[in-house]
Amino acid sequence: MISNETIVALSTPQGIGAIGVIRLSGKDAISITNSVFSKDLLKQESHTLHFGLIKDGDVVIDEVVVALFIAPKSYTKENVVEISCHGSNYIIQQIISLLIRKGASAAKPGEFTLRAFLNGGMDLSQAEAVADLISSDSQAAHSVAMNQLRGGFSTELNVLREQLIHFASMIELELDFSEEDVEFANRDQLQDLINKINLVINKLIRSFELGNVIKEGINTVIAGRPNAGKSTLLNALLNEDRAIVSEIAGTTRDTIEEVLNINGINFRLIDTAGIREATDTIEAIGVEKTMQKISQSAVLVYLFDVVNLSASEIREDIQRLHKPGIAFIAVANKIDLSFTDRVKELGLPSDINFISISAKENQQIEELKQLLYDTAVGDKLSTNHTLVTNIRHVEALQKTRTALDSVIRGLTNPVTSDFLAMDIKQALYYLGEITGKVTTDDLLENIFSKFCIGK
Amino acid sequence: MISNETIVALSTPQGIGAIGVIRLSGKDAISITNSVFSKDLLKQESHTLHFGLIKDGDVVIDEVVVALFIAPKSYTKENVVEISCHGSNYIIQQIISLLIRKGASAAKPGEFTLRAFLNGGMDLSQAEAVADLISSDSQAAHSVAMNQLRGGFSTELNVLREQLIHFASMIELELDFSEEDVEFANRDQLQDLINKINLVINKLIRSFELGNVIKEGINTVIAGRPNAGKSTLLNALLNEDRAIVSEIAGTTRDTIEEVLNINGINFRLIDTAGIREATDTIEAIGVEKTMQKISQSAVLVYLFDVVNLSASEIREDIQRLHKPGIAFIAVANKIDLSFTDRVKELGLPSDINFISISAKENQQIEELKQLLYDTAVGDKLSTNHTLVTNIRHVEALQKTRTALDSVIRGLTNPVTSDFLAMDIKQALYYLGEITGKVTTDDLLENIFSKFCIGK
Repeated sequence: MISNETIVALSTPQGIGAIGVIRLSGKDAISITNSVFSKDLLKQESHTLHFGLIKDGDVVIDEVVVALFIAPKSYTKENVVEISCHGSNYIIQQIISLLIRKGASAAKPGEFTLRAFLNGGMDLSQAEAVADLISSDSQAAHSVAMNQLRGGFSTELNVLREQLIHFASMIELELDFSEEDVEFANRDQLQDLINKINLVINKLIRSFELGNVIKEGINTVIAGRPNAGKSTLLNALLNEDRAIVSEIAGTTRDTIEEVLNINGINFRLIDTAGIREATDTIEAIGVEKTMQKISQSAVLVYLFDVVNLSASEIREDIQRLHKPGIAFIAVANKIDLSFTDRVKELGLPSDINFISISAKENQQIEELKQLLYDTAVGDKLSTNHTLVTNIRHVEALQKTRTALDSVIRGLTNPVTSDFLAMDIKQALYYLGEITGKVTTDDLLENIFSKFCIGK
Repeated sequence: MISNETIVALSTPQGIGAIGVIRLSGKDAISITNSVFSKDLLKQESHTLHFGLIKDGDVVIDEVVVALFIAPKSYTKENVVEISCHGSNYIIQQIISLLIRKGASAAKPGEFTLRAFLNGGMDLSQAEAVADLISSDSQAAHSVAMNQLRGGFSTELNVLREQLIHFASMIELELDFSEEDVEFANRDQLQDLINKINLVINKLIRSFELGNVIKEGINTVIAGRPNAGKSTLLNALLNEDRAIVSEIAGTTRDTIEEVLNINGINFRLIDTAGIREATDTIEAIGVEKTMQKISQSAVLVYLFDVVNLSASEIREDIQRLHKPGIAFIAVANKIDLSFTDRVKELGLPSDINFISISAKENQQIEELKQLLYDTAVGDKLSTNHTLVTNIRHVEALQKTRTALDSVIRGLTNPVTSDFLAMDIKQALYYLGEITGKVTTDDLLENIFSKFCIGK
């Protein structure tokens, strides 16, 4: 799957900036660059920087700095050259097309990282972590991606897989001696190993729920009758955070608008028109679309006006909105206008979280944020375990578990060694897919085509 | 004006990409980076690259490559560090705020280039060329900016200025010996020098007309009656070019939509609604707004239907649209439907350029482009002279010329040495402003505040 071509692409974002970085990788990366550079690069050492001119014949295209990484001491383990030029689209395009004329090919999305994987620079789950890292937009998402990039569960899974391979080969050996009815593979030890693997796998599969939430953010719907104070609450929740987000220049307003970061976790505050816009009664939000949004959320915040709503109206709302599997937080608003005693009379169900706030007076807003965090994340993050954030990994883990279950059944109700061997091989296959010990072109195509060009 | 602070900024464009480059410059650039980097940078050589981790305490923020440029071998002539990190907004923001906590300050727009200027790394016109280079979007604009960056007229002006300084000091000397009535400065030689300087200055001032057009593009209005085929012509002109432009990823459609590049020069095809949209007669385009657009253009292309319009109607249109100072091209369309003989009957004024085309059949379109180029640019570019593209430079040149005129007058109708000295100093001042031999804080503020941050 690795081509002999030397690839080239812009590795920095598109747009006008002070610097653009053009990256080449491949056998001829240095000689191709050398053919358009004002200084001899062929005898230079790895990890050195060289100021000079990129010239197309006599025409100076730019003054640049060239960074040399000589194989295998590079990201891709091939010769890599990074050209820092002035960040003009015109110049970048001129340099890239010049390099292509001199023998380089335009890189496909993710091709640098694909080469890093194929050349043994990183395993597949680490390569996938590179993409996650680039798109991470919260502390938790960043820390999970960084953990995965730096090894994460790969090492643990690879060790267990090596042990399983050992058993597989023992059982293969039994097949060669099948007439003699010997057992090279100790069945008890195999059973122990599989139990151990299953423990790890189950832990990882369970971690996906939280891992996914960290990567994608927690869908949170705020619902309530008109004049419950939803807009004021949204502002109170978002105001401070907006100021923080606005420091991260380049984050578009579209994506940040309704994202609330609590303790490093992104809560995506869902804007259901039906809930936010004026409706006469809570019945009006019962339209299918809105209920669908609620059903796709992880947390529902029910905001109610504790002064103007009767206890029975509130209980009625809760009954309508409270769905199994969706964390529910009842928020009594406008406590500034009333007495907190009022709340006690409500007799809320004991299984829902409750808090009194004043959105307008900005009272108890921090406490509400903490309650949101506790409800959705709780102490699941405090134990420092590895998280799976990638649906591909979960699927591979689930398939591994199914194959291992067959092995266990084969051990309990003894089957012939060849059946056992087949199931173990199946498990090895799926386990290998996670870190890329086993790959297919389709799998790689599928993973790397989602990368940006230049990575 | 130079501060002792070490500055930091993202130097690559905002947005998600494979790589982001964070740049530091200043005395402490290396030690600040060292305080958060996993490898000792303090004893490393200049122009070397170092792979390692950026850590905030125990938390790994990213795996990065650090490039070291030790003073004075850097862009700013100070210690410079460039950190190539993963191109995630979150990571970039984390690293920059960490570096700020460790003692760096956020760089102001253009501050790196300002320091390069203040530390003698480049003169002011070169610094300005950096900004032009980044925003250049055509071959001609790029080549003019690159010429200016690589010295351009600076060297020539500086040599002449040095010679003028010599005379100024001779004349100052005369003031010290004013009672003795000696002339240290040879008046004839001074006159010769000023003539020489004026030749250069006049050439540069004249070059601005073309230089500005190359930098900004040539405003070109296409006018004509309804059904003259304006849309078809626009498509015929733009089609091929659009395909080329679309290869320059990142160029937004908004800015390319109506830009036609001919031989490296951008022609900005002006979209005057009044001209393009259906109007009953050519009188309808006589509305103030449209005529204003025409008056601001450099070239007016008058397109007419050679089949369905009478010679007198065409002459009438030309009379209305032909304004002094605006190059005029009459384009007879629909030659596929008629005989070219028809054109001869028109008796067009001899001072306007004329061509017959068929927009629909794509005939003579390349010839029209060449005519546009010849009309607007001609052979002005073929002589390989230096162009001034910056209005600030033109103004300084004009003020220099005025001051030199006074000197000439003082030589012709002899004035006392002190008046002569004053005028020469005035000329030196304005001449010095161009390359930055003379600067004020306001001037620098005005120039560099237009730069992007990180440059």
